[in-house]
Amino acid sequence: MFFASDNSGPAHPKVLDALMRANEGFRFGYGADPEMDRVRDMIRDLFEAPEAAVYLVSTGTAANSIALATLAQPWETIFCTKLSHINEDECNAPEFYSGAKLTLVGDENAKMTPATLLAAIEDEETRGVHGPQRGPVSITQITEKGTVYTLEELSALTAVAKKFGLNTHLDGARLANAIVTLGCTPAEMTWKAGIDCVCFGGTKNGLMGVEAVIFFDPKHAWEFELRRKRGAHLSSKHRYLSAQMEAYLTDNLWHDLARKANDAGQRLADGLRKSNVVTFPYEPEANLMFFEAPRGLHKKLQVAGAEYYVMGSLDGADDEHVLGRLVCDWSIGSEGVDAFLAALQN
Amino acid sequence: MFFASDNSGPAHPKVLDALMRANEGFRFGYGADPEMDRVRDMIRDLFEAPEAAVYLVSTGTAANSIALATLAQPWETIFCTKLSHINEDECNAPEFYSGAKLTLVGDENAKMTPATLLAAIEDEETRGVHGPQRGPVSITQITEKGTVYTLEELSALTAVAKKFGLNTHLDGARLANAIVTLGCTPAEMTWKAGIDCVCFGGTKNGLMGVEAVIFFDPKHAWEFELRRKRGAHLSSKHRYLSAQMEAYLTDNLWHDLARKANDAGQRLADGLRKSNVVTFPYEPEANLMFFEAPRGLHKKLQVAGAEYYVMGSLDGADDEHVLGRLVCDWSIGSEGVDAFLAALQN
Amino acid sequence: MFFASDNSGPAHPKVLDALMRANEGFRFGYGADPEMDRVRDMIRDLFEAPEAAVYLVSTGTAANSIALATLAQPWETIFCTKLSHINEDECNAPEFYSGAKLTLVGDENAKMTPATLLAAIEDEETRGVHGPQRGPVSITQITEKGTVYTLEELSALTAVAKKFGLNTHLDGARLANAIVTLGCTPAEMTWKAGIDCVCFGGTKNGLMGVEAVIFFDPKHAWEFELRRKRGAHLSSKHRYLSAQMEAYLTDNLWHDLARKANDAGQRLADGLRKSNVVTFPYEPEANLMFFEAPRGLHKKLQVAGAEYYVMGSLDGADDEHVLGRLVCDWSIGSEGVDAFLAALQN
Amino acid sequence: MFFASDNSGPAHPKVLDALMRANEGFRFGYGADPEMDRVRDMIRDLFEAPEAAVYLVSTGTAANSIALATLAQPWETIFCTKLSHINEDECNAPEFYSGAKLTLVGDENAKMTPATLLAAIEDEETRGVHGPQRGPVSITQITEKGTVYTLEELSALTAVAKKFGLNTHLDGARLANAIVTLGCTPAEMTWKAGIDCVCFGGTKNGLMGVEAVIFFDPKHAWEFELRRKRGAHLSSKHRYLSAQMEAYLTDNLWHDLARKANDAGQRLADGLRKSNVVTFPYEPEANLMFFEAPRGLHKKLQVAGAEYYVMGSLDGADDEHVLGRLVCDWSIGSEGVDAFLAALQN
Repeated sequence: MFFASDNSGPAHPKVLDALMRANEGFRFGYGADPEMDRVRDMIRDLFEAPEAAVYLVSTGTAANSIALATLAQPWETIFCTKLSHINEDECNAPEFYSGAKLTLVGDENAKMTPATLLAAIEDEETRGVHGPQRGPVSITQITEKGTVYTLEELSALTAVAKKFGLNTHLDGARLANAIVTLGCTPAEMTWKAGIDCVCFGGTKNGLMGVEAVIFFDPKHAWEFELRRKRGAHLSSKHRYLSAQMEAYLTDNLWHDLARKANDAGQRLADGLRKSNVVTFPYEPEANLMFFEAPRGLHKKLQVAGAEYYVMGSLDGADDEHVLGRLVCDWSIGSEGVDAFLAALQN
Repeated sequence: MFFASDNSGPAHPKVLDALMRANEGFRFGYGADPEMDRVRDMIRDLFEAPEAAVYLVSTGTAANSIALATLAQPWETIFCTKLSHINEDECNAPEFYSGAKLTLVGDENAKMTPATLLAAIEDEETRGVHGPQRGPVSITQITEKGTVYTLEELSALTAVAKKFGLNTHLDGARLANAIVTLGCTPAEMTWKAGIDCVCFGGTKNGLMGVEAVIFFDPKHAWEFELRRKRGAHLSSKHRYLSAQMEAYLTDNLWHDLARKANDAGQRLADGLRKSNVVTFPYEPEANLMFFEAPRGLHKKLQVAGAEYYVMGSLDGADDEHVLGRLVCDWSIGSEGVDAFLAALQN
Repeated sequence: MFFASDNSGPAHPKVLDALMRANEGFRFGYGADPEMDRVRDMIRDLFEAPEAAVYLVSTGTAANSIALATLAQPWETIFCTKLSHINEDECNAPEFYSGAKLTLVGDENAKMTPATLLAAIEDEETRGVHGPQRGPVSITQITEKGTVYTLEELSALTAVAKKFGLNTHLDGARLANAIVTLGCTPAEMTWKAGIDCVCFGGTKNGLMGVEAVIFFDPKHAWEFELRRKRGAHLSSKHRYLSAQMEAYLTDNLWHDLARKANDAGQRLADGLRKSNVVTFPYEPEANLMFFEAPRGLHKKLQVAGAEYYVMGSLDGADDEHVLGRLVCDWSIGSEGVDAFLAALQN
Repeated sequence: MFFASDNSGPAHPKVLDALMRANEGFRFGYGADPEMDRVRDMIRDLFEAPEAAVYLVSTGTAANSIALATLAQPWETIFCTKLSHINEDECNAPEFYSGAKLTLVGDENAKMTPATLLAAIEDEETRGVHGPQRGPVSITQITEKGTVYTLEELSALTAVAKKFGLNTHLDGARLANAIVTLGCTPAEMTWKAGIDCVCFGGTKNGLMGVEAVIFFDPKHAWEFELRRKRGAHLSSKHRYLSAQMEAYLTDNLWHDLARKANDAGQRLADGLRKSNVVTFPYEPEANLMFFEAPRGLHKKLQVAGAEYYVMGSLDGADDEHVLGRLVCDWSIGSEGVDAFLAALQN
């Protein structure tokens, strides 16, 4: 009953198999491995983007930060929601890498809207050289609260950005989950929806620690390579990153694992919905959800062995409502979910 | 015949076994894995430093840069040789992380000396607030040219640093090789020789990509943790870093692998010494060496399948001497070396 | 009728006289001038702070940014309002100097409140190493909207900061105006109210370009000096900064000029209040005010020669209400105000 | 007998007159003053560069650092000599502003040569993404040791830079002195000699604190403006910078003052040459010189009231030779020089 995070579960066995195979013999380092050549081709195929620049790094924060630094100037501001990972969970890494600041866009159901984005953009840069200049728009898909932007919503946001000539970045640490939810293609969710750069996550979906950064316009390639090295994120034994990603892309493993996670998420949400003391502040649309429940219930669940984050203290009146977060890993399975729901019933 | 780099060879099978074992079940992320608890204890034991702060990152450049940022202020200068990795091979990462600059200390046989270090230190900061202030001293062991500081040399350098109250950092990407060469203990080579912080490399010695950063004074711990996160180098599925390092520390695998690499290096050096057209600009003392040879010989070796870096062009007169670099990986073995030497004979 | 900014007016003649006097003979540079010794003593007297570290820089943005960089770590966040100069008008300078980010605190009447500050502080750093750490609180007095924190309000805010061990910074570009409004002493408005560092502005109050940065705890002195030099803000011919500040401090020139500006501001506000088409979104409490008026009125005023900023376009329906900003310089005088009010009547 | 620095003397009276005149009435701030319009035109005329982008800042370190940040990327290295102000006297400001590092070029007679520059450039960037990339070349004219590059030398250096496509920056804190020495035009010494950006100093030559930054290609203009603001170097009451520079440019005041300083320098050098105990490590070619003399002589001179910097301690044997630095300010005059020489004789 481990629902603390989708970075808590094991890597898929195929990933370990791929590491084994990649471990034979010698390779040139720093991305010159033949595995990376294959990964690049596979990602270009998957995203229907034959010219795309494709890179791998080992953390999601690195993917976001180096990508944004490549898109933003140090006198600019990056538009994102307050809830975004780059704002709340990266300890100033995006600012460190880019020199830019973040402007927080209002959110509804954890998503920015064309109206809130437009308001935020229009509010900046009415001051000439005095204020920060408008920089890229960063969208998180799925959101940190478990909701999913529709393709229409994404296109409407990027249209606002494009009206001002701004680049768009998609934090796709859980992109696979969003693609499963919407039943669309990677291309539809990214460049066809106006996204310039996507971080396509693997770590939260069955890899050990690999994220792909994809620029649909290859003009950014060399700068990204230099910024990656300067950030100490160029892996010398790069084949071990490539091999993981190659396994992920082979036979749609990425899609299968995200489906497993989402299925578990929906089973869990359905079960929670049946409880009359639980409410969802955000509609659960993928593998991640927040739920409000009486403190007493949280305590019981945790005593029963459920591991997940409670926002706030478990000390206090049992009948007060407290927020909890549940994340379904690809490996949690229906048994894991059912065990949790059984504990909930008691 | 792959002598291009010690990051080109495979990881040791025990490392993969450890990854397999670590892949069972769920773990809390970000360093809260039980594997890391064991690693911390093992490193404290190995270095005879029960209070040490111990961290893992995935690249050597990250280890050096975040460690130096923790030791240096942005208005300081870091003392190192021109040949050091932090100066020549990290694309400004140490400066990016620390804000400090580098002052290049004169080298002899690729090593700074107490005299050159003293001269460099005395030359800085005679200008009050105008010049950079004196910051940490960074020493590379083994050096980038394959030479090894003796314990006496290390102590003499750190004594100079201490005279000025400066912290000392040891870039130990190949620390294991140096320990094998000198037949000393990790403690003798580090804190007993006056080192405040060491980067203990695993990537070049049989791991996939893990380096330990060790501060002997734990007062630096929290700052390092924040800088690591801000640099996007905190691994979420941290157990896979820990597991590699645990395998490395178990049954002295680190020492065995470095011995294999050094033995191959010495066999190779011995063989090269027998050639009357080859000379060593630096004495080969571990697993890495530079050698001068006629361009024609380099060409023949490469045609014969030897992979290594030649400093400069292979286009030109056959009888001109050109520098080459050979690095023996732990896995190269005596067969690999002998194949190279056979090609050399022909 | 020049109400565009209090940096638009002339320097006071006594300031030029002081420059003349300081221009005799030779001086050591970089702050070692005897004028600076006197300034330091005078500021320590004025602020009743015999131990304070006192420095001069030539812009308000430099004063704020270097002061905040001295108080904040690069992994922290600085608490301020959205309206603050450091957020809206310094083109990322505070972030550039400090590496920290800004967290925007809710405002009422352009002021943060103990409740909004507490909420903002509590909202940060519930995430261990993942989110930014709590850093200094920066308060602007008078606010960018012309309102003034009472001493009780200041003390209540710094009490919240102190509860969390946070340093407090006062952006006092218009501190003199606030002191005149409240009729208090500089000490009462700063350290006695819990302020750790104040930027005491001169540029907007009759100097050519000098701001004092005062740390009540001198432990920050050396770091500030190094950061000032590294930021290229150490003036070589420093006597010309000192001389201006000395004139400012002599015979309370700073207070007289602020009184003139405030008197003009109140005369202007009183006149505007009599117009039935003008409203104040913020109560004018010093020398600076925003007023809403029909676009047609703004047009007429500007045609009549009134220079001030209108927030938004002058193109559009005459009867729509548009915001304007008026700032009274020390030199504007009652004639300047009356000319404006006369234009308003017509 | 004040020879400590050319930032120690008074501003020229015409500069104060200009401040007086500029102090009438109201001006828009931040460079929108009519004085700046005239300055821009005058500098374009003086440098025969009708398209040039022209800006003012208040310190030489700011001029150099912001200019270099505009020319360099953070993964690049800036080529300069060890003796350059940007390396030794700016407390990491160029690195802070640009993110780049500095590569020290060998010097002869305090000047880089085409051969040393070529060697330094060729030595960098043989490592792909691993090492810093080649960035701008920064030349100091006159050098920090008082020597002057000929126009042929400048052209030869910029030719080397251009061969590699590198931008060139001229640190001209004492450009006027060099122009007087060579009897050339500003255009000949800058863009006609291949310079892309020059910092044209006023502070060391009779102004209170103003330096012009001139980009001959205006494409850099907007980035410089943003970097200047982000560095907190945009003066709000900008007219006082403009007025100083306008006075400087009017009737060739800049040239007259530099001539006075150089004449004093040559008179001083001639006098020193007559002493049989004094030697020059560098040939004095403008207003600044280093001289070696017995410690006893330095002591006597200082006792006699001569103020200048001695490199090293005055404690020690009287007959040991010690280095001193003498700088002639525009105002020192032949009397000042003769008084010093008289003290020398005794």
